[in-house]
Amino acid sequence: MKEDVLYHFSLSTSTHDFPTMFGDVKFVCVGGSPSRMKAFIKYMAVELGLDHPGAEYPDICEGTDRYAMFKVGPVLSVSHGMGIPSIAIMLHELIKLLYHARCSGVTVIRIGTSGGIGVEPGSVVITRQAVDGCFKQEFEQIVLGKRVVRNTHLDDWLVQELVRCSADLGEFPTVVGNTMCTLDFYEGQGRLDGALCSYAEKDKQEYLRAAYEAGIRNIEMESSVFAAMCNACGLRAAVVCVTLLNRLEGDQISSPHEVLVEYQKRPQRLVGHFIKKCLAAA
Amino acid sequence: MKEDVLYHFSLSTSTHDFPTMFGDVKFVCVGGSPSRMKAFIKYMAVELGLDHPGAEYPDICEGTDRYAMFKVGPVLSVSHGMGIPSIAIMLHELIKLLYHARCSGVTVIRIGTSGGIGVEPGSVVITRQAVDGCFKQEFEQIVLGKRVVRNTHLDDWLVQELVRCSADLGEFPTVVGNTMCTLDFYEGQGRLDGALCSYAEKDKQEYLRAAYEAGIRNIEMESSVFAAMCNACGLRAAVVCVTLLNRLEGDQISSPHEVLVEYQKRPQRLVGHFIKKCLAAA
Repeated sequence: MKEDVLYHFSLSTSTHDFPTMFGDVKFVCVGGSPSRMKAFIKYMAVELGLDHPGAEYPDICEGTDRYAMFKVGPVLSVSHGMGIPSIAIMLHELIKLLYHARCSGVTVIRIGTSGGIGVEPGSVVITRQAVDGCFKQEFEQIVLGKRVVRNTHLDDWLVQELVRCSADLGEFPTVVGNTMCTLDFYEGQGRLDGALCSYAEKDKQEYLRAAYEAGIRNIEMESSVFAAMCNACGLRAAVVCVTLLNRLEGDQISSPHEVLVEYQKRPQRLVGHFIKKCLAAA
Repeated sequence: MKEDVLYHFSLSTSTHDFPTMFGDVKFVCVGGSPSRMKAFIKYMAVELGLDHPGAEYPDICEGTDRYAMFKVGPVLSVSHGMGIPSIAIMLHELIKLLYHARCSGVTVIRIGTSGGIGVEPGSVVITRQAVDGCFKQEFEQIVLGKRVVRNTHLDDWLVQELVRCSADLGEFPTVVGNTMCTLDFYEGQGRLDGALCSYAEKDKQEYLRAAYEAGIRNIEMESSVFAAMCNACGLRAAVVCVTLLNRLEGDQISSPHEVLVEYQKRPQRLVGHFIKKCLAAA
């Protein structure tokens, strides 16, 4: 191709110099909410000693409101919206961006929120395996009308390294577990409080307890395609999500706003520590 | 439930008076982009004679950046992000909102963008049936680990009424056709320009031509769950999308920004005309 338009980033190889803009990127952190990913880049700037009075962190994707992207030093922070399709579009364009920018040795980490299963709210779950709603470790998609199944393996070294970082910090409970990735937040996660519901509390409890038995410690909506795509493209990847509630005890996220805000900073603190440790060792 | 927290709207029945805020809503228009849905509410305010100098249209979901929501008179405008999971979360909370607000006789219309198949770029497609990546008129989801299939029927009267409105306007080509709803924008829609691609131009052309033969005139990422949920909840619903390109001729969306901006206004103009016509008749 003469030109590659990354439409949902509002960036193009013919109008932007990707190697100059992104060539030094070594860590890409992704999460659902644009404002959370902006807060993360400010946090990283302070942590890496790259912040200064009056520093601004403009949205690199300012030409669109589909995604937001921020950069400081070797760290890129990108929002991905909610759900597998939304993060998949972002990852296709991110991986093309890293290719055009000639980046190498890049680590990609999803820092997100999730519902916990059998863990205290506020716990951070580092994903061992991403599984689907039937607890299978695979990601299925339809390509040209045919079923294609991809592996959702995540990097074992990175899991262990993140566990060590959490122990270094000692600030919040952290567990390693499987993460269930669903296409829906209400019926797809066995909630009783959606606009539609065709089952009872007992069925829900059976399903969530079976998930716990299968090693699942949290539920979110992006990890399977994230693992599958990073895996297929040879990118080292991890998923680090905080749990906002314990689904064995309820469906609604009703903790006070300030408690939820503090919870959401936990994956940022853990991954920030990991990045600093990597940079210090390099 | 004593309280219902619509978490992704940052609204709750215990802190917001839903009947007062939303009781008069008769039309809900939804689309992917927050800024486009804000532009739509400004447009509707002018069209309905409800705009005035200095008028502001604040985001009703200002406590979150997951979705944006705006209201003028009987029209509610809500963003839904990209993909089935993202619009499904919004629809669950929207349908609960309409229920708590005791709304009745509500029509819901998705005004979006899409890739066309065999139609001139800029054409507006009114969806007859939403179909999946295998051209089947159904929406499949996993509930408590089991496959559940729902009907994706859309309102026939509404389709015909929207066709008449387009004829009234006579501003742009409009067709009625089937809409394919996919979980991915790149491989899932047979694009060759994603980060991953395991097929050739010939395979893609065969797939898209088969889609055309099956009556499909555009591809997007939300219509099937939109039709299924509105159908299951007894809401009259339609999908009106403009096509940004003809996929038989390419994959990249590379038209000039101002051309794409004008295209994106077409579903707004069509649906705006429909709403005015309904209100005049009432």
